[in-house]
Amino acid sequence: MTEINKNKLSTDSYKGVRDFYPEDMAIENYIFNIWKKTAESFGYVEYGASILEPTELYKAKSGDEIVNDQTYSFKDRGDRDVTLRPEMTPTVARMVAGKRRELKFPLRWYSIPNLFRYERPQRGRLREHFQLNCDIFGLEGIEAEVEMITLAYQIMKNFGLKDEQFEIKINSRGLLIETLAKQGIPLEKITDVIRLIDKKNKLKDFDEQYKALTGKEFELNLLANLKINSLITKLSKKNIQINFDSSLARGFDYYTDIVFEIYDKNPANPRALFGGGRYDNLLDIFGEEKVPAVGFGMGDVTIRDVLETYNLLPEYKSTTQVAILPFSADFYDEAEKVANEFRGNNINAVVDYSDKKIGDRIAKIDKEKIAYILIVGEEEVKTKTYKLKQLSTKKETEISLNDIKKIIWKNI
Amino acid sequence: MTEINKNKLSTDSYKGVRDFYPEDMAIENYIFNIWKKTAESFGYVEYGASILEPTELYKAKSGDEIVNDQTYSFKDRGDRDVTLRPEMTPTVARMVAGKRRELKFPLRWYSIPNLFRYERPQRGRLREHFQLNCDIFGLEGIEAEVEMITLAYQIMKNFGLKDEQFEIKINSRGLLIETLAKQGIPLEKITDVIRLIDKKNKLKDFDEQYKALTGKEFELNLLANLKINSLITKLSKKNIQINFDSSLARGFDYYTDIVFEIYDKNPANPRALFGGGRYDNLLDIFGEEKVPAVGFGMGDVTIRDVLETYNLLPEYKSTTQVAILPFSADFYDEAEKVANEFRGNNINAVVDYSDKKIGDRIAKIDKEKIAYILIVGEEEVKTKTYKLKQLSTKKETEISLNDIKKIIWKNI
Repeated sequence: MTEINKNKLSTDSYKGVRDFYPEDMAIENYIFNIWKKTAESFGYVEYGASILEPTELYKAKSGDEIVNDQTYSFKDRGDRDVTLRPEMTPTVARMVAGKRRELKFPLRWYSIPNLFRYERPQRGRLREHFQLNCDIFGLEGIEAEVEMITLAYQIMKNFGLKDEQFEIKINSRGLLIETLAKQGIPLEKITDVIRLIDKKNKLKDFDEQYKALTGKEFELNLLANLKINSLITKLSKKNIQINFDSSLARGFDYYTDIVFEIYDKNPANPRALFGGGRYDNLLDIFGEEKVPAVGFGMGDVTIRDVLETYNLLPEYKSTTQVAILPFSADFYDEAEKVANEFRGNNINAVVDYSDKKIGDRIAKIDKEKIAYILIVGEEEVKTKTYKLKQLSTKKETEISLNDIKKIIWKNI
Repeated sequence: MTEINKNKLSTDSYKGVRDFYPEDMAIENYIFNIWKKTAESFGYVEYGASILEPTELYKAKSGDEIVNDQTYSFKDRGDRDVTLRPEMTPTVARMVAGKRRELKFPLRWYSIPNLFRYERPQRGRLREHFQLNCDIFGLEGIEAEVEMITLAYQIMKNFGLKDEQFEIKINSRGLLIETLAKQGIPLEKITDVIRLIDKKNKLKDFDEQYKALTGKEFELNLLANLKINSLITKLSKKNIQINFDSSLARGFDYYTDIVFEIYDKNPANPRALFGGGRYDNLLDIFGEEKVPAVGFGMGDVTIRDVLETYNLLPEYKSTTQVAILPFSADFYDEAEKVANEFRGNNINAVVDYSDKKIGDRIAKIDKEKIAYILIVGEEEVKTKTYKLKQLSTKKETEISLNDIKKIIWKNI
C-alpha cells in the first residue's frame, strides 16, 4: 500500500507557462508544421540556439524596458550574467557575426525558438511562447521586404485565413525619425518618443504622455516616401494589399527603415500577429561591418487565439493509426508480431495490454482518437486472418499479415 | 558608413551550450525525426511542457546531487524559486497527477525536451541537451518493460546500429536494495550506497569510498530474480539480447524495480545512451495514489557522438530543392512567378536575387547543397520554356510552368 503523501506538491505548472497535454501538443505541432512548411517553401533553412544567452547581448539594442523589467536574468554558479532569451534577433545576429567570413550571403534562415518575458500573463501574452523567426541577411534592395511580406501573407493563407480577415500595416522607422527631428524633437529623445508612439493604441493617456515628453501636441504627417510607395505597388501586383500607418513604430531600437505588422481585424485579438522590419546595423555590436537584414517574428499564442476565433484548428486525431487488441494475455506474442508488421510498413500501431472487457477497451481507444482496431484471438491465430475495423464507419476489412504492406492506407 | 563598434560583444554562445547552424540543425532534425517516428510507430503520443518548473518539484525524489549542485535555479521577480528542468520525469509525473481522474490508462507518452545541468562541459555532457523521453503509465506487468526495451532497441536499429555495436544492461533496484539490506547495511544509508554504486565505473577510488561509507568490502552476488529472468527470456524470443549487471543502479532515487541502460561498446563513447526503469511511486509526491510507470530517456549529445563514430550521419542537403536565378533585376517578377508555381506544388524554391556573375551564383547554390537550378532570362520568358538542371549530374530537363505539377520529383 502506498501511503498518501501529506506534504503534497502542487500539480500546477510554473505561473504563466503552459503544459501541453497530447491534444494541445497536436495544435502546437499543427502551427509549427505550417510555419516550417511555408518558410521552407520560400527557401529558408532552419537554425537553432540555446535559450541561455549572456545578458550583455540584450543591453545594446533591444530597448531598456525589455532588458530591465521584463527579462529572466540571473547569475549562474560561475557568476556569469545569463538571460533566458526574450527575442531571437540578437541571437541570430550573434551567430551570423560569428561566421561572417565563412557564410555566403544572402542567407535565408528560420527558427522556432521559445522566448521568455517576465510579465503579467494575459490573453495573447504568456511568460513563455514560441515564435517563428524568419530573416534574410545580405539583401539591400526592396526585394527583401517584398519577399518577407509575401512569406508572412502566405503563412496567413496557409492557416486558412481570408484576405478580409487581416490587415498588413507598414511604416518607415527612418522616415519617422526624420519627421520627428524636423518637428524639433531633440535627437536624444527620439528613441523614447518612438517607444511611446509604439504603444499609442494601448495607452489611454497617450496624448498627455506625449505632451509631457516632447512639449508638443502629437501630430504626424509622414508622406510615404518612394521606397514605401514602391513596396506597396510591388505587393499590390501580387494581390497583397498593405496599408501605410504613420504611427507604427515597433518596440525594438534596432530597426532602421521599413517596419511592418499584421493584425487580425477581429477586435477579440488586438495584438499584432506578425512584426518585423529592416535592421541593417545590428552586427556592429559585434564589431562586424554592417550586413543588411530584414526579419519578422510570429508567435504561437496569438495565432492560436485567432485560429480558435475563426474555427480554423483541425480536429484532433491520434498519431497512432491502429490499436491491436490481444483478446487475453495468451495472445500478447501474436499481437506484438502483428503490430511489428504494421510498424515495418510505416503504420503506427499500439498493442493494448489489458484485462478489461473488450467493449471498454474499444471505448478507450475511440476516445483516444485512434482510427482503427484489430482484435487478435483464437480464431484469428488459427485462420491467420484479421479484421481491421475503422471505428468511425464500423467498416471492416479482412487482412492477412502479408496484406499489410499492400494496404493503401487512404482507401480502407 | 557604419562605424565599427569599439566595445564589441563576443559572438560566442553561453558556455556549454550549442549554436545550431543549418548543417548542425539538420543533424538535430535527423535525430529528432528518428526518435519521433519510432516512438509514434509504437503508439506513443507527444506531449510538452515549459523548461521552467517550481524548484520544489526536484527536491523530493531526483537525488541530492542533482538539485543542490547541478541545477540552474534562481528566484524570479516575484520571489518564486524556479528551476530550469534538469530531467523530464518529474514534469511528466506532475502532468499525469494533475489530470489523474480524466486520463484513461495506460498512457503512452513521449516528448523531446531540452534539459539543463550546471556542470563542467565535456565529451558527451553539455549544460543543455535534448532528450527523448518515453513513458508508459498504468501497466503493472512485465509487458511494459518488454515494450520499453523493444522500443529502445528499435531506435538503435533505426539509427543504423548493429546488434554487436551496443549492449543492453538490466538490473533490479528493488533486488539491489534487498541484497544490501541483507548484508547489514542500514536502511538510511542505502540511497547513498546506491548512488555510489551508480558511479562505480567512473571512480578510481570506488573500493575505498565504498568501504568508508559502509564499513564493508564491495561484493554483490545478486541472484537474478524471477521477473528479470522472465524479461530476459521474453526479449530473447524477439532476438533482443540483454545482460544482467548487478552494479547497474541509475542516479535517480525514484526507480523502484527494474532499471536498464544501453551502451555503445566502443570505448570512445563510455556514457550510457539510454537509461530508464520502473518508478511506480512517483505520483505520491503530489498526494495521488500510485500509478505504475516505466520510462526511459535518450540524449542527443551522446547518440550524435556514436553516429559520428560509426559514420552513420546522413550527408547534408538543403531543404530547398530548387533555386530560381533571374538573369537580371528585369526578370524578378517572372522568377517569382516560377518560384510560386513550384511552391504551390510542394517543392521548396528560393529566388536568387543577385547582381553577381551567373557562375558565382551557381557555385554558391551548389555550396548550399540545393539540388536543382532554373535560370530565368530573355529566352526563357519568350519561349515560356525553362531548363531545370540537377547540379550533381548536370542533367537538364526542359519544362513549362504547366509541367511543374506533373513532375515526379524523384525521377528528374
